[in-house]
Amino acid sequence: MMAKVTKITKTILTDVIRKRPANSFKGTYGKIALIGGSRNFGGAIIMASLAAVYSGAGLVTTITDPSNQTSLHDWLPEAMFVDWDQFEQAEPIIKAADVVVIGPGLGTDNHAFDILTKVFGLAHKDQKLVIDGSALTLLASNNLSLPKDSTNILTPHQMEWQRVSGIKIADQTPDTNQAAVQKLNAITVVKSHRTQVYADGQIFENTGGTPAQATGGMGDTLAGMVGGFVAQFSDTPKAVLAAVYSHSAIADKLAEKQYVVLPHQISESLPKFMHKHQAE
Amino acid sequence: MMAKVTKITKTILTDVIRKRPANSFKGTYGKIALIGGSRNFGGAIIMASLAAVYSGAGLVTTITDPSNQTSLHDWLPEAMFVDWDQFEQAEPIIKAADVVVIGPGLGTDNHAFDILTKVFGLAHKDQKLVIDGSALTLLASNNLSLPKDSTNILTPHQMEWQRVSGIKIADQTPDTNQAAVQKLNAITVVKSHRTQVYADGQIFENTGGTPAQATGGMGDTLAGMVGGFVAQFSDTPKAVLAAVYSHSAIADKLAEKQYVVLPHQISESLPKFMHKHQAE
Amino acid sequence: MMAKVTKITKTILTDVIRKRPANSFKGTYGKIALIGGSRNFGGAIIMASLAAVYSGAGLVTTITDPSNQTSLHDWLPEAMFVDWDQFEQAEPIIKAADVVVIGPGLGTDNHAFDILTKVFGLAHKDQKLVIDGSALTLLASNNLSLPKDSTNILTPHQMEWQRVSGIKIADQTPDTNQAAVQKLNAITVVKSHRTQVYADGQIFENTGGTPAQATGGMGDTLAGMVGGFVAQFSDTPKAVLAAVYSHSAIADKLAEKQYVVLPHQISESLPKFMHKHQAE
Amino acid sequence: MMAKVTKITKTILTDVIRKRPANSFKGTYGKIALIGGSRNFGGAIIMASLAAVYSGAGLVTTITDPSNQTSLHDWLPEAMFVDWDQFEQAEPIIKAADVVVIGPGLGTDNHAFDILTKVFGLAHKDQKLVIDGSALTLLASNNLSLPKDSTNILTPHQMEWQRVSGIKIADQTPDTNQAAVQKLNAITVVKSHRTQVYADGQIFENTGGTPAQATGGMGDTLAGMVGGFVAQFSDTPKAVLAAVYSHSAIADKLAEKQYVVLPHQISESLPKFMHKHQAE
Repeated sequence: MMAKVTKITKTILTDVIRKRPANSFKGTYGKIALIGGSRNFGGAIIMASLAAVYSGAGLVTTITDPSNQTSLHDWLPEAMFVDWDQFEQAEPIIKAADVVVIGPGLGTDNHAFDILTKVFGLAHKDQKLVIDGSALTLLASNNLSLPKDSTNILTPHQMEWQRVSGIKIADQTPDTNQAAVQKLNAITVVKSHRTQVYADGQIFENTGGTPAQATGGMGDTLAGMVGGFVAQFSDTPKAVLAAVYSHSAIADKLAEKQYVVLPHQISESLPKFMHKHQAE
Repeated sequence: MMAKVTKITKTILTDVIRKRPANSFKGTYGKIALIGGSRNFGGAIIMASLAAVYSGAGLVTTITDPSNQTSLHDWLPEAMFVDWDQFEQAEPIIKAADVVVIGPGLGTDNHAFDILTKVFGLAHKDQKLVIDGSALTLLASNNLSLPKDSTNILTPHQMEWQRVSGIKIADQTPDTNQAAVQKLNAITVVKSHRTQVYADGQIFENTGGTPAQATGGMGDTLAGMVGGFVAQFSDTPKAVLAAVYSHSAIADKLAEKQYVVLPHQISESLPKFMHKHQAE
Repeated sequence: MMAKVTKITKTILTDVIRKRPANSFKGTYGKIALIGGSRNFGGAIIMASLAAVYSGAGLVTTITDPSNQTSLHDWLPEAMFVDWDQFEQAEPIIKAADVVVIGPGLGTDNHAFDILTKVFGLAHKDQKLVIDGSALTLLASNNLSLPKDSTNILTPHQMEWQRVSGIKIADQTPDTNQAAVQKLNAITVVKSHRTQVYADGQIFENTGGTPAQATGGMGDTLAGMVGGFVAQFSDTPKAVLAAVYSHSAIADKLAEKQYVVLPHQISESLPKFMHKHQAE
Repeated sequence: MMAKVTKITKTILTDVIRKRPANSFKGTYGKIALIGGSRNFGGAIIMASLAAVYSGAGLVTTITDPSNQTSLHDWLPEAMFVDWDQFEQAEPIIKAADVVVIGPGLGTDNHAFDILTKVFGLAHKDQKLVIDGSALTLLASNNLSLPKDSTNILTPHQMEWQRVSGIKIADQTPDTNQAAVQKLNAITVVKSHRTQVYADGQIFENTGGTPAQATGGMGDTLAGMVGGFVAQFSDTPKAVLAAVYSHSAIADKLAEKQYVVLPHQISESLPKFMHKHQAE
């Protein structure tokens, strides 16, 4: 069998990014909780949060190590902060969130595992759950099951996907990946030179991307964008495709003049990019 | 009865924003104290303070949770900082302020309530008091009376206005709102898709605003701008109208190229916008 | 008697700002220590330090409250930080400094007074001492004598000058000021709408300045610029005049498009302004 | 004998900076650990880290005093943070690093010496070790031997080189320097008005550089660039030459319009500069 792979092209943008209705308010564009950022990896959750806000999410709360409070607000006064050590404060926010992004800079220690299992326990059917970075490593190493009721979206790079799926990088093909995804019950974004998205039994492959993106933080930014897009746009698989395409399209444009593209530059480019490519 | 509603148009700008007299100094442009920003919502008071400084207020002091000291100065070395847990330091500054803005990110816990009642107790006839965000929720839930001597300005969104006035959102009309405002003795800005201002027995409706503004922090920025404008321009109702108009006019301009407008971008646009639209 | 007042004009720039010799190093451009920034007024010493670095000082150390360490480096990784509570660390740096700027955000409590008297005690003949802001208030209220050996430069606004000189603002004329300055043994910059500089028995008056500058932090920025200029340019009175002129000339330029000019914008404009106006 | 000195010219750029292969990932561009930044000199390690990330290094970890965590992330969410007081966390990262940069803002106290000797102890044959700033002072004052297996790169300014080599600045000539370098077994960058590089028995002299660079932090930035270049480009001596040339070429360009060039501006200019000068 040879799985059919559909290219993700520019048309996904106008398919997904709609002109905003005049009479809307911040609640219209979703509540997102982003969870991650240990003391060592605070930058990761900042980059993910930046992507969520700059893609247009309505209300963003970042749940992170207390040592990241100031640097979060330095980048993003628009985000609310919750100390992840005060989980009684985080819990109602996680429950009320339309979208939860967990993983960027989360780490893999017991504390991280404890938060991950709590988030899985709180997940519900009206929630989209984006699982990224070290949350994927924890998922794999602890043989966790994904929550049953939420819409789950995994964003592994190839090594993380090996851990989650058990398929070695060399053996990761559309067919093998597709089979693994179908067992998982999750939209899966396998990040590489040409990122693939597995959703609703279909396989999509991105057509953009540049080696100028090969720098730490790119994945954190994509996770935040995926969160921001699925919070705003109702067709979740298409919203994921649009986030993936936008991430590389912005990078490709910046790389026309830059040897390396910094992740935060992608987020800062989002408002103009999305304006330019929205459907009228 | 059908209340008359006057449109707020561009002419309000040159009506209000005057060319500064050559021989003036920072005291000429008012002292503002902004109070808010709990540990969770520090970004809100930063965004309000940014709006106050960038609209041209003379001297700005931000009274907030101590954990926000550094992020405040990262955005705004121009603002002075007072730890709200050292109220003996805050008290003389609040008394001496021409304008007090209370509410952005204040929170609704006992500590917040305690500060709010102290600020109400200190309010005096030479003072303008802008009450925003969680201060409005506290006002409503505790049935507080507004200070008698200060000029009070409320800036609720529709849900906060429901809490304060008791009028459900669906029932909020110029007539019902007007009746409620007249009992309150406050200039009232009811924020929505087309914000309305109730002042001096008149009703005004804004003609600008964009769904690109539907993101967290927009209201905090408006509260800071209202503070900045009433500190500088002597006709208080008109200054409020000019702040409301400027806020949406800047956003409309940015939205010509951006899918979402970040609140801090509005503040950063103020110096040029006000220069362009000042009366000669 | 009617004192002669000389206008400060553009020619002071090429008189003072010299093309840098090719074979120079950071030591050539002076070591500055800036002292100030209590917990409440950290922004002031940041703005002063920003002005010193951006005007081209070789090596800048900021001696301030420990709570300002992070916000200092957020604005200025180029500055070194010393905790003013560890005076044994600060002392050798102050001694070795070519220029000491004391006062921006220093405060007027006992701790501030203690530091000021220590700095006065350390001042020596190869040192220029810029005394600004609350250091001037402390000087006046404690009847301190200025150090005898250092070259002293005072930068009071009119109210601070009243405190230091005993001359009420209404009575501050070139003649009365000149008499007071001669007793003080200090170059004195009396800041106002048209700032005056008293140096070497002469009186100079600035020809620039805009009401867009009437905002908190302008004076801190000037103090830092005076420090930066006297560190680099050997004719101290002329360097002070050039700093005063540059400060208002940059503001005038920015005010062609801005209703209010933020102090940090002046510092950030310095490298291009000084390049444009340097002598060939 | 008269040593031959080869000029470093523009051709080194296309010799070294290669168009990135399409199918690459962040691991392709190296793991760098930067170690430095005491409480007083946190800005130095931030500037070095900024240079490493903006020159395109794949994964950057900054090992520094805990008080620098927030300001590091304010400049650079892309960098990971490790508290240098938790050396058990730092150790595996240092071991796994392709490049270690030690010295910017390290200080010269016992704690700094302890870290330096540990890093020397961990150095291995697959590692490039850039030794800068106070690490050089410690090296000299303690008569330390350089690690035997790693590729060592020293970046002293003339006074540091005097300490390390024992050759007084006035006596530093290509011949005397060359002799000292050959004993050291290290590529050596002697920074001055016209920086010289001693590598593989050859001597190179830079042809760019401007007195606008004579400000604190320039050397920290160069150290980070050297780290970033040797992490990405396999010919180490040439990568060092390209970093030295790029550093001054960017400064020369900025100095066409600026009286002083700030170190962080050089880093921020790297992505466009390297794009422009890469080999096709």
